[in-house]
Amino acid sequence: MDIIGTSLKRVDAFDKVTGKAKYTDDLVSDHALIAKVLHSTIANGWVKEFDLSEAWKVNGVVDIVTCFDVPNIQFPTAGHPWSTDPKHQDIADRKLLNARVRCYADDIAAVIAEDEIAAEEAVRKIKVTYEEFTPILTVEDAMKEGAITLHDERPNNIVVKSTYEIGKFEEAIKEEGLIKVVGDYETPVVSHCHIESANSFAYMESDKIVVVSSTQIPHIVRRICSQALGLGFGKIRIIKPYIGGGFGNKQDALTEPLNAYLTTRVGGRPVKLAYTREETFACTRTRHAMQFHIESYIRKDGSFAARSIKAYSNQGAYASHAHALVANAVNGFRMMYPVGAIKSEAYTVYTNLPTAGAMRAYGIPQIGFALEAHVDDIARQTGLDPLVMRKLNMMKLGYVDPLTTITCHSTGLEECIDRGEKYLDYSKKRVAYAHQTGPIRKGVGMAIFCYKTGVYPISLETSACRMILNQDGSLQMQIGATEIGQGADTVFAMMAAQTIGVTMDKVHVISKQDTDVTPYDTGAYASRQTYVSGMAVKKTAESFRKKILEFAGFMLKKDSWDLDIKDNNIVHVNKNEKLLSVADVAIESCYSLTNSTHIAAEESHHCTDNTYSFGVCFTEVEVDIPMCQVKILDIINVHDSGKIINGQTARGQVHGGMSMGLGYGLYEHLKFDPKTGQMLNDNLLDYKLMTAIDTPELHADFVQTDDPTGPYGNKSLGEPPTIPVAPAIRNAVLNATGVAINAIPLHPQRMFDAFIEAALIK
Amino acid sequence: MDIIGTSLKRVDAFDKVTGKAKYTDDLVSDHALIAKVLHSTIANGWVKEFDLSEAWKVNGVVDIVTCFDVPNIQFPTAGHPWSTDPKHQDIADRKLLNARVRCYADDIAAVIAEDEIAAEEAVRKIKVTYEEFTPILTVEDAMKEGAITLHDERPNNIVVKSTYEIGKFEEAIKEEGLIKVVGDYETPVVSHCHIESANSFAYMESDKIVVVSSTQIPHIVRRICSQALGLGFGKIRIIKPYIGGGFGNKQDALTEPLNAYLTTRVGGRPVKLAYTREETFACTRTRHAMQFHIESYIRKDGSFAARSIKAYSNQGAYASHAHALVANAVNGFRMMYPVGAIKSEAYTVYTNLPTAGAMRAYGIPQIGFALEAHVDDIARQTGLDPLVMRKLNMMKLGYVDPLTTITCHSTGLEECIDRGEKYLDYSKKRVAYAHQTGPIRKGVGMAIFCYKTGVYPISLETSACRMILNQDGSLQMQIGATEIGQGADTVFAMMAAQTIGVTMDKVHVISKQDTDVTPYDTGAYASRQTYVSGMAVKKTAESFRKKILEFAGFMLKKDSWDLDIKDNNIVHVNKNEKLLSVADVAIESCYSLTNSTHIAAEESHHCTDNTYSFGVCFTEVEVDIPMCQVKILDIINVHDSGKIINGQTARGQVHGGMSMGLGYGLYEHLKFDPKTGQMLNDNLLDYKLMTAIDTPELHADFVQTDDPTGPYGNKSLGEPPTIPVAPAIRNAVLNATGVAINAIPLHPQRMFDAFIEAALIK
Repeated sequence: MDIIGTSLKRVDAFDKVTGKAKYTDDLVSDHALIAKVLHSTIANGWVKEFDLSEAWKVNGVVDIVTCFDVPNIQFPTAGHPWSTDPKHQDIADRKLLNARVRCYADDIAAVIAEDEIAAEEAVRKIKVTYEEFTPILTVEDAMKEGAITLHDERPNNIVVKSTYEIGKFEEAIKEEGLIKVVGDYETPVVSHCHIESANSFAYMESDKIVVVSSTQIPHIVRRICSQALGLGFGKIRIIKPYIGGGFGNKQDALTEPLNAYLTTRVGGRPVKLAYTREETFACTRTRHAMQFHIESYIRKDGSFAARSIKAYSNQGAYASHAHALVANAVNGFRMMYPVGAIKSEAYTVYTNLPTAGAMRAYGIPQIGFALEAHVDDIARQTGLDPLVMRKLNMMKLGYVDPLTTITCHSTGLEECIDRGEKYLDYSKKRVAYAHQTGPIRKGVGMAIFCYKTGVYPISLETSACRMILNQDGSLQMQIGATEIGQGADTVFAMMAAQTIGVTMDKVHVISKQDTDVTPYDTGAYASRQTYVSGMAVKKTAESFRKKILEFAGFMLKKDSWDLDIKDNNIVHVNKNEKLLSVADVAIESCYSLTNSTHIAAEESHHCTDNTYSFGVCFTEVEVDIPMCQVKILDIINVHDSGKIINGQTARGQVHGGMSMGLGYGLYEHLKFDPKTGQMLNDNLLDYKLMTAIDTPELHADFVQTDDPTGPYGNKSLGEPPTIPVAPAIRNAVLNATGVAINAIPLHPQRMFDAFIEAALIK
Repeated sequence: MDIIGTSLKRVDAFDKVTGKAKYTDDLVSDHALIAKVLHSTIANGWVKEFDLSEAWKVNGVVDIVTCFDVPNIQFPTAGHPWSTDPKHQDIADRKLLNARVRCYADDIAAVIAEDEIAAEEAVRKIKVTYEEFTPILTVEDAMKEGAITLHDERPNNIVVKSTYEIGKFEEAIKEEGLIKVVGDYETPVVSHCHIESANSFAYMESDKIVVVSSTQIPHIVRRICSQALGLGFGKIRIIKPYIGGGFGNKQDALTEPLNAYLTTRVGGRPVKLAYTREETFACTRTRHAMQFHIESYIRKDGSFAARSIKAYSNQGAYASHAHALVANAVNGFRMMYPVGAIKSEAYTVYTNLPTAGAMRAYGIPQIGFALEAHVDDIARQTGLDPLVMRKLNMMKLGYVDPLTTITCHSTGLEECIDRGEKYLDYSKKRVAYAHQTGPIRKGVGMAIFCYKTGVYPISLETSACRMILNQDGSLQMQIGATEIGQGADTVFAMMAAQTIGVTMDKVHVISKQDTDVTPYDTGAYASRQTYVSGMAVKKTAESFRKKILEFAGFMLKKDSWDLDIKDNNIVHVNKNEKLLSVADVAIESCYSLTNSTHIAAEESHHCTDNTYSFGVCFTEVEVDIPMCQVKILDIINVHDSGKIINGQTARGQVHGGMSMGLGYGLYEHLKFDPKTGQMLNDNLLDYKLMTAIDTPELHADFVQTDDPTGPYGNKSLGEPPTIPVAPAIRNAVLNATGVAINAIPLHPQRMFDAFIEAALIK
């Protein structure tokens, strides 16, 4: 029996396609009260006072809470493991409702009513008096001398500034015959656009607050709620049912802390707080817009002598994950091509935009675009072959990062490049397409990436699992790690079945996390779960297997070390003859009159390792210059994510990530009114998301390495597929037109401006 | 800190008085379909055919299932731990619906509809053709030669016959100068009358059937449902929320197996199957009516030379717990006075009455009435002092039962008797009241009992528990043992707090059992939980405490064996100075960057011991002879239940038990139409249950022994208080009037007949 590496149907497939799967809103009590939040209509200023008189008159209003009523506690919202060291704790810069308004649609009051209509009407009838300041929307304005500061103790609105230097940059650039290439690159604010909007409901059991929520991180949200309300962890219980995607947006506490507070206002009655799509766009989190200034000094052979980067990250109104993202970006700048001297300066800056947080690949799509565009710019200016240059400078096996100590334990990157090159016949086409004329031109482009798997040692990696044997030889598996649509339950079930020695049908995954009884895990983020939580599953499965074999040994009067489990049967090690079934052991262990033992195992794993995954995107495009349109003719991602646990779900991850990358490169960007800071396209009509008809045939391939640190040789796959797509498209457009566009998305307006400037359009 | 032995508020008090506590019906989905069962209108015969045509026409009917559609599987319903030895398995003598009708209101078909009205209307419109036999309602008729047998392979309808002999009875009775006393005693069929009727609802998650049910025994019901449907245990999940009492009725699978099957008929849609009060009376379980013939041979000094008993138990239609109850009764006959030669012959017999099952004290209220009435009859005929005689013959410390090996590890019975005697001034009054005349007379009576605590070695005693540490130093406790209103959660929380070394507010009991994740326990029956499950709580708490201390030792760089937990703090053994708080350990163990460990403990305990509890009831009554009325003037129960865990909840148990005993002695009995076998008083108007105004002031006292086998020196208390009340009243009436009434309840009609016969009424 070899389950790992096969392509199996998802364990939740049936319930999800038949509609049996329960999501947060399916679980809301019909008697629940409805809460609605009043969002500010200014982006920067103070709430001076409210007139609630008309709101209170609305029939069905149960309570109205304003920013002047909530606990005077500042709390953080980032979905990071807590640190007991204050220096490493997330920035606590918001209250449940805020009188100091820091973005358009900030949360300033809330209404609890018997039904949604009453709640919405009352919210509309609340009159607010503001003191208003001019909105600050850009990093430049925010950092200007004398700019009004949005948070105390953050002069020039700089949340964090960090620098590092590898080698001696100033000396390195003095080397003879270096070619200097400079570039400025810019990425947009985008939205996660998960299917299920942010929503939760809360009620009380005795003096315990229960919040059922669509979150990626139930255990962390429990901690954040306890901080926000000033209660002990044990007084908060978070339940996470199936969720309709998160992509990092739900790696933050969103509606939960306020929802937890609201139920306490009504004696513990159930209160539902579900955001609309518009609120989910404007009032949850976004992906940070970043600006990069890169200077590279290249030797004639294409090797990198020295590189410097300046990075600016637009944080928006509240810290959330704050500097962690741009820090990850500038670390990625170093890790991708860890050669020569490298100097970095990075800023995270508060503005009056909506708060930016975690989003799939956590800063790397931003640097991935800038860096891989820049490498093609170097190739263009130096005449070097971009593939040769990448292979020459990219990370090699055994690399140990000097700042994080993260080590390259395995790499299939070179083969990924070769396969992609071969698939597209890239090099030949690149030359052939170099000097086209006419309105319609073709181009090929590619980009590579490397990606950390977990977050160690930057932050804590810890996970736990529990398995319970049923009397028929099947088992329940409880995991703190969360299924968020990515297929985690399925691969965990495969890991358990493989390690214990039972068939897949014997493993019942408890998909729902309930922080009262579910073992601890920090949750679904980074691309950590198959790697970190997979270790906890493996460790628990081994201990569970051992207990079964010990009881089998007792029944058979044999040494348990001489026994094994294969295909649901107890056998001699290296033999196949069935001695007992696991079911025989299960029923006897429960009902034995001499030795009744209830077999269950629970193990926690503290992961103190990390590893890199790699990949490439190759694409061929057709550019219609007069129409300023890009058409994807062909595209492939080739990934080294170590050993692939489930081929089918892995391909699904790659396709989803490529689709997101296409949107990032071609269409998606949130627009804001420059005067008010109001989001202008906070819905799926005006925000251009990739749909089925926009999506070309997507090709995915894997170079399977066997990572020595992965529980089953596996490495990160969840986030990476989205990274290389945008730069590959940009480089293909460059190949087609000779025009280097240094900002995404490549929407017609941007291309029009660039083609005008390049005199391709007159 | 000494928590055990104090009087603490119930942990569920707040939620129960505020209505926050959720019961099965509170959890039913509003979209649930409603199922109603068609019950037979004959007591004995066969269903020949159904005409469903009119029923199918009812708007809203989704499905109709008859006894001809259900799986052809016979299953048992008794809430006993399973035995892997077929000889010790419960009798599998029923199907989900039965074509062979064996009692009036037997289950023969079911309707599933969109709402209750449609379901009821369709049930009414089902036409049934029967082949009808004469109902057999009495043991005598059932055992008659040629009586029609209700089940195959049970000639004369005898379910089981058992005998035992201690010593040599026939020789013993030859002893010189023995006084022979003979008596026949009879107890009625009564109903449990728990507040919450039998009800459940079921739905499917993927291919797993979930049944939410008001049961005392979720893990056992899971096994029974898997047997009834022929599915693996892992395909069944039972969830038990708060329940409104059970008293043994819910120690059987009631609506659950059929409910589990019905949801499979509608593709897993939620189906609610809630019995009305009338159905709960007529279609669930009753307490066995028993008849006893006792012959005693007494020496002049009052010592028992030899005793024999013949016992007949009316089982009704299906086996359920079957012979276990009358076996317990005749064992009790031996154990209460384990002297001289003893001979027993016991029969359990099928009839067409509703099925009898477990009820509080499991056969002992029946034998308790017969035996303690008989002892007073002996005293009357021999002129011996009944207290002296009881003390002379009753069980003494160190007694080892020859048939079960159950040992008397502790006894406070003599002191219980003395306290009761002193409280009531019994002996003096007994003499004073002996020869009254006139219509209104007073009398005193008393009765003693002994009671096993668990069911070992007759059947398996096993239990498990899990504790999970929260980051604030509080914990969740998951127990397979069930809160059924008796206060189990409270005493388990006290045990955990005491053993770990934390205060009560730190212990969060998960009251709800969910067989998917809750550790195994056979459930709430016998009076086993504080004794057997208490052992699992103690064992788990010790292992949990050890893990906390080990991490504290790691933090403090000290040996954990040198550390202790007192009042939520880590201290040196035998010292009080706080080194750390448990909360410090909890948060560091979770977030430690060097040693992150998620502290949880899970232990199972196989109990291979048992012990006896004891007690006595003393009462003074006033008998109005012309009116045939008994008035309770004073009543007290004095119990030796070992160490009392919680004084307040213990008194509550005693008061509840005494109230039940008063009803058993004075009012309660189910009546049946002798021609049809239909229950005549299947509701709380016609069935006379004790109410507040019927209940005199109840006095409870405890003689606290420290049992060496109890986890905290404790012994059984849940069931015992109900045992001695009825015989004490009967003996008081005897003392008052000289009339020995050998059947209960002592309702006016029965007393009238007896007083006529005794010529007290002319």
